[in-house]
Amino acid sequence: MTNFETFSKQWLPRIEAEMRDMLSHEPPALRGLYGMMRYHLGWETPEGEPDDAPRGKRIRPLLTLLSCWAAGGDPVRAIPAAAAVELLHNFSLIHDDIEDQSLTRRHRAALWSWTGIAHAINAGDAMFVISHLAMLRLRNHPLAAQQVLDAMQTFDETCLRLTEGQFMDMHFEERNDVTLDEYMMMISGKTAALISAAVVLGAIIAGSSQIDAYRTFGYELGLSFQIEDDILGIWGKEALTGKSATGDIITRKKTLPVLYALSRSGPAAEHLRAYYTRTSPLTENEVPQILALLDELEARAFAEKMGKRHADAALAALANTDGQAEAIALFASLIQLLTGRTS
Amino acid sequence: MTNFETFSKQWLPRIEAEMRDMLSHEPPALRGLYGMMRYHLGWETPEGEPDDAPRGKRIRPLLTLLSCWAAGGDPVRAIPAAAAVELLHNFSLIHDDIEDQSLTRRHRAALWSWTGIAHAINAGDAMFVISHLAMLRLRNHPLAAQQVLDAMQTFDETCLRLTEGQFMDMHFEERNDVTLDEYMMMISGKTAALISAAVVLGAIIAGSSQIDAYRTFGYELGLSFQIEDDILGIWGKEALTGKSATGDIITRKKTLPVLYALSRSGPAAEHLRAYYTRTSPLTENEVPQILALLDELEARAFAEKMGKRHADAALAALANTDGQAEAIALFASLIQLLTGRTS
Repeated sequence: MTNFETFSKQWLPRIEAEMRDMLSHEPPALRGLYGMMRYHLGWETPEGEPDDAPRGKRIRPLLTLLSCWAAGGDPVRAIPAAAAVELLHNFSLIHDDIEDQSLTRRHRAALWSWTGIAHAINAGDAMFVISHLAMLRLRNHPLAAQQVLDAMQTFDETCLRLTEGQFMDMHFEERNDVTLDEYMMMISGKTAALISAAVVLGAIIAGSSQIDAYRTFGYELGLSFQIEDDILGIWGKEALTGKSATGDIITRKKTLPVLYALSRSGPAAEHLRAYYTRTSPLTENEVPQILALLDELEARAFAEKMGKRHADAALAALANTDGQAEAIALFASLIQLLTGRTS
Repeated sequence: MTNFETFSKQWLPRIEAEMRDMLSHEPPALRGLYGMMRYHLGWETPEGEPDDAPRGKRIRPLLTLLSCWAAGGDPVRAIPAAAAVELLHNFSLIHDDIEDQSLTRRHRAALWSWTGIAHAINAGDAMFVISHLAMLRLRNHPLAAQQVLDAMQTFDETCLRLTEGQFMDMHFEERNDVTLDEYMMMISGKTAALISAAVVLGAIIAGSSQIDAYRTFGYELGLSFQIEDDILGIWGKEALTGKSATGDIITRKKTLPVLYALSRSGPAAEHLRAYYTRTSPLTENEVPQILALLDELEARAFAEKMGKRHADAALAALANTDGQAEAIALFASLIQLLTGRTS
């Protein structure tokens, strides 16, 4: 019986090889541009030497292969789409880091903090295009042209959801009255859309007739994944996330637990609102007080309940497919893995 | 007999309508994002009121329709691709303005100077995606799926050339030893690739078997167009270009005439190199002296000769097609129009 880790070990090298192949054949005059992209992906140092830096979990491309397998297809055919999904995710990280002024990414300097804003915008654009060219390599596999076009359509509609989600995220930073509904709409675009697309692409390539069930599964999985990430951003261990523990408190990020707590009435909520609306920044010393208020307002319990609800909905959607039993079991274990990171 | 202006008057409203349709159906929460894109396209004020600001010449999408017609197709079928080409061009302008720190665009504030860098990067990304979704509307016309995929492939390969050309352009600003060959490689990506793609897309949609001839035509047209632009940037009239006359001198932009003059030997070239390599910026008072040196070094005559050479190559490629006579005549008159702007 394969577990998710075995599956990942088997397929990650092939996804990585496909991604590298997209980014390895430039003429000398363009070495600088491609070097920036290879740096961001963890393959090279700024000086162009080989590097083996942390690359993220590469969950999304694995979902694409797993979903292709679940729906009865050969995962090999889905490799171009898997590479495309991971390149798209990384393009969005390059631009997000500029937009959020984040100086580090995966324990290294964020691309823009090495190259400056101008080159990093352009390198992100180039990676965005290359993700599309990776998708078009589906043409080299024995797939019907209409299937390739369906996959491209899903891919580009997802790209649009990403930029819409990013707009809402940035817009929310400027506001103090974000509702829980608006927040769910934002993470639907910023996180769930791409995870859903990763799953749907595999199903399209396998020729599945149950695309809607796979879409729902991926979407609910993405929501539960983001909510888990929100919980980790406040109560997570630094070693686990690569980010400072309670980092989302200091920056007053309006994630689900916080928005829930802010939406409540009573003196504790009033007190919390004062922290989140005052103009001067928070200090480290104030973090324990805010954590206590969040506890009192049952923010973590609420977020965990919501996360579980979406994870259950994901499992229910999965049960609506007639996918291969072994692949479905891997999906289920992945849900456990992704949503159980705090325990 | 139709002339280019008549053709343009007939088709521009339909291209414009297609572009607007791609950018008019957002939910209220995303009004801000779509408003930024509509502002950039000249349709709205920053306050979201209707505007009728200068929109550029929209040459590229007209080339797509004209080439479809020349190759025996119905221009109506090429409208989605024409809209896509213009949206792609505008995406690149949004990001270029940030990268070059240009404060104005078409006599208005550049998008980023209104919205800030973060939102403008994201709005550019959104327009980039929407250009792809515009391409995918080719699926609604009676075209073979393989033709649509060929068109998508051309489109994305062109996008990559654009980002590569932009990288070289930015990289050249940091160097003092750019050769004429490197410069031609840069404008091949930054300008000629998209003009060539505009032409090729029309030919693909028409089902032409002479794609290579159309590609060469578009490419040579693009080179002559850029060289003409370089000439205008130094010797052009402000009213004609919307930019300050001699603007490229003050900013010491390394365009073709300048690179040619800098590559020569003798005291005049030495004198010019001193201006272009010194650390302190140029002053308005020094512009006449630099113009005199460029004259002495025959920089304008060289650029005009090169521009004419590429315009002639474009005409020769056109003669290699068996396109419709009336459409071919329009192409020829367009070359006159584009390359005769200084006279």
